[in-house]
Amino acid sequence: MEHKSSMANGGKPIRCRAAVCQKAGEALVMEEILVAPPMAYEVRIRIICTSLCHTDVKYWKMKDPPGIVPRILGHEAVGEVESVGDQVSEVKQGDIVIPTFLAECGECRDCTSNKSNICSEHPYKLSQGMPRCGTSRFTDLSGEVLHHFMFVSSFSEYTVVDVTHLIKLDPILISPDKACLLGCGVSTGVGAAWRTANLEKGSTVAIFGLGTVGLAVAQGARICGAERIIGIDINPDKLTMAKKCGVTEFVNSRSIGDKSVSQVIIEMTDGGADYCFECVGLSSLIKEAFACCRKGRGKTILFGVEDSVSVLGLKSIDVISQGKTVIGCIYGGLKPKSDIPTLIQWYLDKIL
Amino acid sequence: MEHKSSMANGGKPIRCRAAVCQKAGEALVMEEILVAPPMAYEVRIRIICTSLCHTDVKYWKMKDPPGIVPRILGHEAVGEVESVGDQVSEVKQGDIVIPTFLAECGECRDCTSNKSNICSEHPYKLSQGMPRCGTSRFTDLSGEVLHHFMFVSSFSEYTVVDVTHLIKLDPILISPDKACLLGCGVSTGVGAAWRTANLEKGSTVAIFGLGTVGLAVAQGARICGAERIIGIDINPDKLTMAKKCGVTEFVNSRSIGDKSVSQVIIEMTDGGADYCFECVGLSSLIKEAFACCRKGRGKTILFGVEDSVSVLGLKSIDVISQGKTVIGCIYGGLKPKSDIPTLIQWYLDKIL
Repeated sequence: MEHKSSMANGGKPIRCRAAVCQKAGEALVMEEILVAPPMAYEVRIRIICTSLCHTDVKYWKMKDPPGIVPRILGHEAVGEVESVGDQVSEVKQGDIVIPTFLAECGECRDCTSNKSNICSEHPYKLSQGMPRCGTSRFTDLSGEVLHHFMFVSSFSEYTVVDVTHLIKLDPILISPDKACLLGCGVSTGVGAAWRTANLEKGSTVAIFGLGTVGLAVAQGARICGAERIIGIDINPDKLTMAKKCGVTEFVNSRSIGDKSVSQVIIEMTDGGADYCFECVGLSSLIKEAFACCRKGRGKTILFGVEDSVSVLGLKSIDVISQGKTVIGCIYGGLKPKSDIPTLIQWYLDKIL
Repeated sequence: MEHKSSMANGGKPIRCRAAVCQKAGEALVMEEILVAPPMAYEVRIRIICTSLCHTDVKYWKMKDPPGIVPRILGHEAVGEVESVGDQVSEVKQGDIVIPTFLAECGECRDCTSNKSNICSEHPYKLSQGMPRCGTSRFTDLSGEVLHHFMFVSSFSEYTVVDVTHLIKLDPILISPDKACLLGCGVSTGVGAAWRTANLEKGSTVAIFGLGTVGLAVAQGARICGAERIIGIDINPDKLTMAKKCGVTEFVNSRSIGDKSVSQVIIEMTDGGADYCFECVGLSSLIKEAFACCRKGRGKTILFGVEDSVSVLGLKSIDVISQGKTVIGCIYGGLKPKSDIPTLIQWYLDKIL
């Protein structure tokens, strides 16, 4: 891929404030930084609003690689285009955009297929810089490089994002504070039901963990026509919100006595759920989710884990003899530019 | 499920010969046994031909449960109906049948769905007896019980099988020695490409291990229109047969120097295969098969493992961040009664 180093619009670095992670697990430091102008295929954005996702917290705490400091975290955001680099025609100054950690070039073998949401020109990877060259656009006032995070780094007044990682928004349709959740959590959950699981009408669904992702899975499952949506959580206070999101039955995993969650779900569903979503990110729950999937057809959808070394502790013989499927879900199987407009339409139609 | 104990046709035990596994790992003992008449929903069959599958060998060697002796192994066979028990109308004396380890009742929630091939009335399980009651129809001449295997036990001149585990054959169309492979190996491989993977035209496929199952996967992949079918084996002598079965490229995993198989496949395919089939049953190869699946869409299909305790050694974070799928395959995802006729038709049409 060609990489031009020409500056856009004769752009200069912008001096602004950012919340920098200077040391793993310690409070972010609000400081003045410099944000370089966008290079070719890049866009500099003024962040309008940003939210905190569990993945930010995970990397904030991470002492060893791929954890790295100093770094600007944040990957759920909405911003306004400040300037664009060479070769960028898709957005212009003043456009409202959602930066996304996943790219969509729109042209590669995977972007043009309906089987994948991982662009093969710009595949998702753990990086500390820009996607094309790996270098940073952030420095502190002494000139030290500040690293990027997930190609977004939204905990800054300004950031630089590759154009393949941007979705253009119509700000009249959706407010930035709502839209910013489309950068990760809500999209991941809704997409997981819609694209990753591709779940059909009448399905039975079990959702482990009713946080942002879990509640979004419930909404996605409802939109897809799931008949039973069973939410599992340790906190019964989540029930009211869960019902609003489509959960039809609730299991408090702290109030089931000697039974395991999978035993309860298997009894409730006479053999197991068609789709089980593990939204907490614990290996032990992955096993429970797998166990309560229906034999011969059950699919377990995974979103995250507690660390980068855990292996799937499922017995191979069980996966095989029970004819079950395990699916890893990144960004809900959504193609950012192609699918987010559908989610926005669902929001406008008040079904999301 | 009702279980009548009435005898069929006033049937009596049949005295015949069987190859009995008396001790794990030791030569089967050819001996005289008694085969009880079929009870309700059961069919007594004269075995016309039977073949040996890797699973028979695995259980023959198995010293600890679910291994058990004395037992009559064998689960790939063709037979002729000798007599039927009460409630059996689907087959009659003289019919030619394939017994299958998987059942299809045709009426339960799973049999009537196109999502599953595991009958929920008669789910696949490790059993040492008949599916409905768990008891044996075999005794030796001293009256000692001989255990069943996979609901078939075809290493005997006569066996008793539940009617839900039988496929009726037209013997004019296909000879017993060909048909008997449909009981397990060939069906599993062809079905894995057709039903489990549901692979689409133009796909790229990697097959680890070119034994019966692997070669059948190749045929299934060719029938489904796969564009590239890469066979991987340590034995280059398999190439000729592999090509006949549809393999388009061959990788000798002993002749790739310092590279791993996954590196080779990723290079050959510019990013990985769409579908990887692990037909050897080794945990280490499961990892390699998973590694050479294409990010964002790759599916790894598993058939077996070396033991009943191995866990999937795949890192959860890789499954998730690479958006990959792992599918356990039992009997190729085929419904025995519904799908085997299609395989027979493919055989008659000379495409299988």
